[in-house]
Parts: sequence; C-alpha cells; structure tokens
Amino acid sequence: MHTYRTHTCAALRQDHVGESVRLSGWVHRKRDHGGVLFVDLRDHYGITQIVVDEDSPALPVLEGLRVESVITIDGDVKARSEGTVNANLPTGAIEVYARAVTVQSRADELPLPVAGDQEYPEDIRLKYRFIDLRRERLHRNIILRSQVITALRRRMTDQGFTEFQTPILGASSPEGARDYLVPSRLHPGTFYALPQAPQMFKQLLMVAGFDRYFQIAPCFRDEDLRADRSPEFYQLDFEMSFVTQDDVFNAIEPVLAGVFEEFGGGKTVTPAGTFPRIPYAESMLKYGSDKPDLRNPLVISDVSAEFTESGFGIFAKIVGGGGVVRVIPAPNTADRSRKFFDDMNDWSKREGFAGLGYVTRKGGEFGGPIAKNHGADRMAQLYDALGLGPDDGLFFAAGKEKDAAKLAGAARTRVGEELGLIEQGCFKFCWIVDFPMFEYDEEQKKVDFSHNPFSMPQGEMEALETQDPLDILAWQYDIVCNGYELSSGAIRNHRPDIMYKAFELAGYSQAEVDANFSGMIEAFKLGAPPHGGSAPGIDRIVMLLADEPNIREVIAFPMNQRAQDLMMGAPTPASPRQLRELHIRTADQGARAAAGAGAAETVRVDQAGA
Amino acid sequence: MHTYRTHTCAALRQDHVGESVRLSGWVHRKRDHGGVLFVDLRDHYGITQIVVDEDSPALPVLEGLRVESVITIDGDVKARSEGTVNANLPTGAIEVYARAVTVQSRADELPLPVAGDQEYPEDIRLKYRFIDLRRERLHRNIILRSQVITALRRRMTDQGFTEFQTPILGASSPEGARDYLVPSRLHPGTFYALPQAPQMFKQLLMVAGFDRYFQIAPCFRDEDLRADRSPEFYQLDFEMSFVTQDDVFNAIEPVLAGVFEEFGGGKTVTPAGTFPRIPYAESMLKYGSDKPDLRNPLVISDVSAEFTESGFGIFAKIVGGGGVVRVIPAPNTADRSRKFFDDMNDWSKREGFAGLGYVTRKGGEFGGPIAKNHGADRMAQLYDALGLGPDDGLFFAAGKEKDAAKLAGAARTRVGEELGLIEQGCFKFCWIVDFPMFEYDEEQKKVDFSHNPFSMPQGEMEALETQDPLDILAWQYDIVCNGYELSSGAIRNHRPDIMYKAFELAGYSQAEVDANFSGMIEAFKLGAPPHGGSAPGIDRIVMLLADEPNIREVIAFPMNQRAQDLMMGAPTPASPRQLRELHIRTADQGARAAAGAGAAETVRVDQAGA
Repeated sequence: MHTYRTHTCAALRQDHVGESVRLSGWVHRKRDHGGVLFVDLRDHYGITQIVVDEDSPALPVLEGLRVESVITIDGDVKARSEGTVNANLPTGAIEVYARAVTVQSRADELPLPVAGDQEYPEDIRLKYRFIDLRRERLHRNIILRSQVITALRRRMTDQGFTEFQTPILGASSPEGARDYLVPSRLHPGTFYALPQAPQMFKQLLMVAGFDRYFQIAPCFRDEDLRADRSPEFYQLDFEMSFVTQDDVFNAIEPVLAGVFEEFGGGKTVTPAGTFPRIPYAESMLKYGSDKPDLRNPLVISDVSAEFTESGFGIFAKIVGGGGVVRVIPAPNTADRSRKFFDDMNDWSKREGFAGLGYVTRKGGEFGGPIAKNHGADRMAQLYDALGLGPDDGLFFAAGKEKDAAKLAGAARTRVGEELGLIEQGCFKFCWIVDFPMFEYDEEQKKVDFSHNPFSMPQGEMEALETQDPLDILAWQYDIVCNGYELSSGAIRNHRPDIMYKAFELAGYSQAEVDANFSGMIEAFKLGAPPHGGSAPGIDRIVMLLADEPNIREVIAFPMNQRAQDLMMGAPTPASPRQLRELHIRTADQGARAAAGAGAAETVRVDQAGA
Repeated sequence: MHTYRTHTCAALRQDHVGESVRLSGWVHRKRDHGGVLFVDLRDHYGITQIVVDEDSPALPVLEGLRVESVITIDGDVKARSEGTVNANLPTGAIEVYARAVTVQSRADELPLPVAGDQEYPEDIRLKYRFIDLRRERLHRNIILRSQVITALRRRMTDQGFTEFQTPILGASSPEGARDYLVPSRLHPGTFYALPQAPQMFKQLLMVAGFDRYFQIAPCFRDEDLRADRSPEFYQLDFEMSFVTQDDVFNAIEPVLAGVFEEFGGGKTVTPAGTFPRIPYAESMLKYGSDKPDLRNPLVISDVSAEFTESGFGIFAKIVGGGGVVRVIPAPNTADRSRKFFDDMNDWSKREGFAGLGYVTRKGGEFGGPIAKNHGADRMAQLYDALGLGPDDGLFFAAGKEKDAAKLAGAARTRVGEELGLIEQGCFKFCWIVDFPMFEYDEEQKKVDFSHNPFSMPQGEMEALETQDPLDILAWQYDIVCNGYELSSGAIRNHRPDIMYKAFELAGYSQAEVDANFSGMIEAFKLGAPPHGGSAPGIDRIVMLLADEPNIREVIAFPMNQRAQDLMMGAPTPASPRQLRELHIRTADQGARAAAGAGAAETVRVDQAGA
C-alpha cells in the first residue's frame, strides 16, 4: 500500500464501499458528536468524511489535533446512511471509518481560518498566503488561472503560433512607464531593465523570420499600484508576419472567444468572427469612451445641431463656441423622482464635471428647465429623432468635445447601472479601430503622435505625403470586453522611410529618430516583413472569468499595494558586500559618506507616491 | 486575394501546377542564368524557387534588390522539368514564374550572410541576432526549443500537474549563488531579488494544498559565465505532495524519456521506468563522478586491498596511509604504443593530478613498472578478478579517496573517448540516489550538511537520533543524462522537529535556524504535507537534443559571456532621475560626491572576475 494514499480525497464513491483505503490530507473540520468524531479530510482534489468511532485508536490522536494538521488515515469505506448522504459532495455517498492515523504535520493555531468564507484583512491574507490559498475561493481562482493559461497556449499553438521566451534582463528604453532596473556586477555603473513588454523582441523575431510568435510574457512596470495593477503581470503577447489587421482579428478572436466560452461558467460570449469593429471616433461619440461596455444598451447621441439656436441659452452658447451637446437616454424613468435626476447632476459635479442637465418625461409631458426653455415641440421632435418614448428621460452633457464625451460616457455607465440595464451573464467583445495617427497637442502647440508612433498609418507613405495629418488613421486597435481594455495592438510600421516621414510630421528629425530608436530602425533596414500583433492582459482575462475586482485575487503570490511581498518580506536591505559587488550605494550610504566628509548635500529624494 | 500570400513558401506541390499564387518572403539566394533570374524565396516554413523570365516586369526590380530583401511575388505555379526537380526540397517539384513583385522591405548590405553555413564571430552573430536567427541552424534550434517546452508542458499536464507562475520580483536569500537585485522605488534602501529558483514558492504551494505543481520557470544567477551558463535560464520546476522518492521518479521518467524520444532524432533513450538508480557511493566508485556518462562502458574498480602489500611500494604506502588505488580498464590496447599510455599520464598531470599509472598487456604479457614490481602472477590474478583479457591495458589512480576517485573518473572519460568506446546515438539516463546527508568538513573540523540541508534524512528523526551522522543518507537525487546533471531534487524535510535536529547535528542552534529560515519553518508549523520534487534544466535538455555545446545556441536572444546584450545594448547607464527615484547612486557618483567634499575614501571596488 502506498505510504500516503491509495485514493485522493475526491475519489471514493459508492463503488468503493467495503474497501480498505488510505487517505492523506488536511483536517478541514472536526465535529464531535458525543464520542464519535467526524473529520472532513481535505486535499487538493476534494473532501472525504472520516468517521472516528469511540473505539478507534485514531480517536485520542485526532482529538488532540488542531484543524489544518496533515494526517494519513487508514480506514474502511462504508456507505452513508440514507439521511446523511451529501449530494453536494462528490464523495457524499460514503464515509471512511478510521482504523489508524499517522500525523504528518501538526498545525499550530492558525492566523486565519481555512474552512468557511469569512472576510479577512488583506495584510493577514498576504502574509499567510499559503493558508489563504487553501481557502476555496483562492484555490479555485488560481486553478482557473492555470487552466486559462493552458487553454490560451493550446489555442495559440493550434492556430500555428510558436511560443518563445524573450529576455527578462533587458535594456532600459526611454518611452513607456517606469522601468525596474537591475544593477550590473560586471559592468560598473550600468543597469539592466526588466521588460515592460517584449515589444522589441517580438518585432525582432518577425524580422528574424519566425512567422507567428506568442508568449505568456511576464511584464514589469514600476508604477503606483491600483486594484487592477501589479508590479509584475502577464500578457498573451503575440505577433504575426505578412498580415493585415483582419488577419490579426481572425487569429485572436477564436482564442479569446474560445477561452471565455470554455471558462465563462455558461455566460454568453460574442462569437469569434463577429466581434464588432467600432471606429475610435464612433466609440467616443456613442459610448463616450474607447473602451465601451456593450452590455449597456444606452447609446449617446450628438444633438449639438439642435441647439445652435435654442431658448436654452447655455447650450446655444456652448455650441456657438465650438462645443458640443451630447445626450444619454434614461428609458422608462417616468416614475423616477426628481431626486434621481438631481442626484445624477450632483454625482457629475463630484466627479469634477460641469454638471449634467436633464429632461424628464412622463406620459409625453416634459419636465425640467432644458425642455421648458427649448420648447416642448422641438423637444418632442428631438425625442422622435432619437427614437425615445413618452416615458423616457434624457441627460445632457455639454462642453468642449473631449469633456462632454467623457462626461457622457461616465453618465451612460451610471445611468445604465442605476436603471439596472447592464445585461448580465455575458461577455461582450468589440474592437476599437481606426485610431487617429496624430493629434494636436494643445500644450506644445504642435501635431504629435496620438497613441503609438510605431503603428503603420493607413494609406502608408501616400497618406503621410498627401493628407492632413489630423485626418490620418492608424492600423491600430484595442480589444475590449465588458468595458475593460484587454489590450492594444497594431500593424507595425516596418518601413524606415515611412517611419522617418511620420516622425517628421510630428516634428522629429531623422537624426532624433536614429538616436532613440536605432535598434529597431537598423533591423528594419535589413529586410523586415509587414507584421502586427497585440497582447491581451492575462490577469485581466482571469479577473473577468473569476468575477474578481482585484488582481491580487488571481495571482498566487501577489505583492501588496505598496509593492511588498508580506510573506517573504521583500524588498529587503542588501548587504554591504552585495552593494559593493554591484558598484552601487543606497542614498542613505551616500548621504553618510558625504556627511562624514563634511558635505551638506542632501541626497535623500522625495519618496515617490505610494 | 490576400495582400501578402495565398500560400507559405513551403506549401506548393505538383497539385498546384497551373494555379496563380502570391508568396511573400525573403530573397534567400539569387542566381542569374543569362537573362533568367532564379530567386529562392524563403519564409519561416520553407523555400520556393521563383523564376523571373526575361520579359517579366519583376526582373528589373529583382535585379536591383539585395538578398534578404522582403518581397511579395505574384506568379504562376509550373512543374519543374524532369532534370531540375529537387527531391530534397518539399517544394522541389515546382517553381513559380513571377508575373509581378512588390518590395516590402529593401535590405541594405548584410553584416553576416544568411544562406550557407560559414562560421561567424560570435559578437557579430549576437549583435545582429535577428539576422543570425534567420540561418538554418539557429532557426531550427529555437523552434526545437519551443517544441520541447510545449511537449514538456503537455506531458506534465497529462501527468496531473498544474502550472503556476511564481513571483520574479522576490526576496533575496542568504544561501545559494549570487542574486540579481532590483532596487525598490517605494522603499528606499531596499531591494528585490530575481529568483535563483522558485524553491520556496513551490514548497509553499505544497503547503497551500496544491498537489502537483510545475512551471517552466525563469531563473537568474549572477555568476561568472561559461559555455553552459546564462544569467537567465529555464528549468522544468516541479513539486508533488504525499509522495515518496519512487513517486517522483515515476512521474518524471515518462516526461523526460518521452521528450527525448520525441525530439531525439532517432537516438535510443533509456525507457521510462527503467532509469538505473545508482547510489552516490557506488557512482563515485564505479564512475569517479556523481554524473556518470553511462554511454561509456568502462567501470572503475577499487583494488586497494590488492596493494596493501605490493612490490610496487608507492601504492602500498598510499593504501597504508588510508588512501585508495582505483583502476580503469583500457580494453584492446595491445597494439597501442607506449606513447598512448604516457600521454595519458602527462594529461593527468596537466589537469593537476598526481599522475596516472598503467599496466600494458599484449598477448598476456604485462608491461610497465607497476606490473613489474607487483609481479606478473599477482597481476594476472587481478586481471582475472576484474574480468580483463590478455590484450587489455589498465590505468591506476591512487591517492586520497576523493582525489583518486576524481582522477579515475576523468581518466575513465578520456580513455573511453580515446578508444572510441562512447556509445553514439543514445541518451542514457540514470538517477544518482542515496546522497550522504552530512559530511565531515575538514576545514571547520566539524560535521556539516553535504548537499541540501532541507532534504529529508532517510530514517527521519530516528536516524538522526540513533545513527552516526556520517552514515545517514538523504532522500536526495540527481538525474543525469549522458554525463550531464539535468537537475537535483529531493524529498523535502517538512517537519520542523526533524529540521531543528538535523541542523543541531550540523552545529546550528534552533535560534539560528529560525533566524535564517523562519519563512519556511513557520509555514511548516501550520500544516505541511510530505513533498518532494526536482527541476530539470531546460536549456541543457535542448542543448542535448540539438547536440549543441553552447547554451547561447539554444536561446533566442542570449547575452554574451560578459552578460551583455550586444543587440539591445544592455546593460546601460541609468539616468540621474532614475537613480534618484530608486534612492541609489553608482559607485562613481558616490566617489565624486565624496571627492567633491574632500574625502579620500575609495569607493570603487574591484570588478568581479569577468
């Protein structure tokens, strides 16, 4: 018989009744029923009920044992009596009568319980992560994460992608977020950087002739943390050669839709091949956002033209000054109190917006100052044009286009939530496409890149040479699910001539481009294929599937929000020898050295926002 | 028609003759046959021959194009004439007559060629890695690496293992090799460390109740580099709960044997379930090494007893002084010259050993001073005992046991190689087991751990309490293939009481153990399962399968031997702002600050051996 187990704690069924078995696991729960002890024995796979009779030699041992101790039980499988069968438990038809017990590990008192699902403070949970991970929710999340990643890999491989590993010790790059740096021992005064993303490497793999790359890539950003940010995170990084935007979409839609169908717990998923493609401008208009939650049926409209002349002078003035008026329907709000509408206005002000106007309507009767001043007839015409009915309210966001769009987007979300309109039980995907290549930078009073300078402009060189830069669109795309941006991506600009020209339009000389991006440019001069890709965030995908609002719930060993590993105690001071070997000193050391030499120089700097 | 291709460059066959196709790829080779241009068009998948006729509009374009430019060809598939069919090329039955060409990317002159297989200096190859990766050998190696890793994953998953990601930003640990450190921005003066291995995390995952963990784990060691060492490397890290050593072997043998069979190119592989298990002591005796190459049929024997009294006084003296005499057969060396034997002796001295004695034999006649002094009769008896024949030579390694074993091991390898005895075309696996738990440390004059203090001693507490520490074996094992150690592993000591006792025997107090290993010990006090695992080196596996002697040939973007990325230019100086944010200064900065304040303190340290 095996030293530790003949079966896992999820294995035994009615069929096993009469067998002698050996099980190992954790004492999940103990219940003393007057002389008879019931133990829920738990392992990775499940739970089996152990019965310890009055005359079992295991009884005194188990009585003295704390929960979460690890034991091995020798016993006999018996059928449970009819009334005690537990249909919710895969092993619920049987119980194991303990003949003997071996204590593998005696547990001290626990800092947090495993059985049950009480909330516990996060710092305790993180410090004792190995206990927290035993709890059902986290255990399930981490297994889900693993299954999702395995499925992503399989689906990518099935689509003809090859997985690569790119370096983690890399070069610092001037753009992007803040790098984590690693001092070099062999080259004093220099540093490696951890990758924010393997962008350069994946493009170089295309230049190297590998056709379809992917990687479950660890990425690192030294940024201030939020609920959905971790210093290290994973993305499904992929890149393809000889492709158009359509090819990228066709390759990744089945992967994402497939994984969401596989692990979505029955929620409906936008079918692969049918992800809506929403141009950026349309998304900003209709949803007030470039990451629209399509579960929300509300659609924003622009009604600026309606208010060029209006009794409601504020809007007329805004429109006259080049601003816009956008409206968000509030369907079936006839029976909502005035307070509902006023609260929405107050909320918008708390969020830092100018305020949210509104029109109420009840049985066709309009209410509120906008309707009054604009006139009921014109309001009714507007309603007809918008397809609104006699009991629908309407919110107004007015101002400069950017501000109005943002307010309208936020109001759309809030109205949708308040009115319970957000469709549940579904994952709605879409692409945001046709991002503008350039934008006018108000501060610098010049044209600059709006998103990614390395995307290919639509129309390529001809567009750059003949069109107004602000009209040029890029082959750039975001993938959005339920209002969360999963990734941005692009067809890359692989042509040095087009690259130089695009940078020229944004005011950069060829010399500047060469100075900052020589690695990429030089590679592109030695034979580069057209290529493109994207990099959906894996933590975000798992968060959506696990329905968790916090990234730390889907990472086995996360840092806290101050980028500390409370369990292992990282980060820690380094030894003087380590610092010496790395040719660095801490600011403190530097200060002491300087102070010791009589210098007054202050070397401590502000602690970055924590 | 697709913008870039209707087929890959490996797709077209006889069946496609008559079709209009579009292909994209790199100009691999150009051959001008008097007015007709032949272009080998290459992509990731293969090569297709393009024919550019005198009257093709593509001709002038292609004539002006350098090799490695990227083009798209529109053309017609035609059958090759009988004499020009290339059976070695999957597309060798056809050629594509170019009607039109689009230049996707014009290549400048190349720093190294892609076609052909000339050797090139490694610094050029590393600087232009994206070109080097286009060459057949590297391309093949990197794809092999990816396939091996995919297969390892699949086989581990099939065995019920779950893949996890453990943190890359972790805590520095006192033992092991040198850590790479990462300064913390949020916590001045402190550092993260990159993992040398996810050892702690995988054991904590077991404590957390996950049953079978694995990870294709990136690991980092800031050590001086050799051909088989890279600053970052990957291991197939795995760990299992409720297992004995046998279970670990049974789980991993099918994975390794399977992958070697799958990718070994027809070489034979030790079948799973039959990996020999060689106790450490036996391995040191018979092979003079704990990583024996079992392709070498030679076996070392101890003949010390034979020489307690001998005419050959040197050996008698060595044995009398507690030393040993070991012999390495040199079969069928009757026709080898005296020089062969003398060269071996010279070699051993060059390697820093005391020298290698020998006996020659030809048709039963012994030669050499050992045989002469020891006497032919006794020599013949010894030969019979060793199973040697009338034409076999014999080498002698004598001295302190450790030295003699090492010399014998090195000589076994060299004799095997010189005599061409190493079996080719096979991968021979074995386990080295039963490592001693403790050893006598001559320097410190005390018992200390011989390998891993965290392995479970065989016999557990009872052994520690009752046996001579130097007799206690550990549940520790190495896996060896063709003389390379792929990994070491162990059944872990999960019991704090046994851990304290083992450390006590090695002279450490409970307080010292708690101070250094509190994380693990505290976790083990809250319910830990028996567990064990290992971590075969993936780079080494791929090196063996690709038959490459250098780790850099199986990594897509490796650093050079001075830990520099020549392509991306890492490591690089950090900006003053970066250093300020990280609360560190380089030694240079420190020196300048101190010098500026009139201090004489020297802060530059020696540059560690590069």
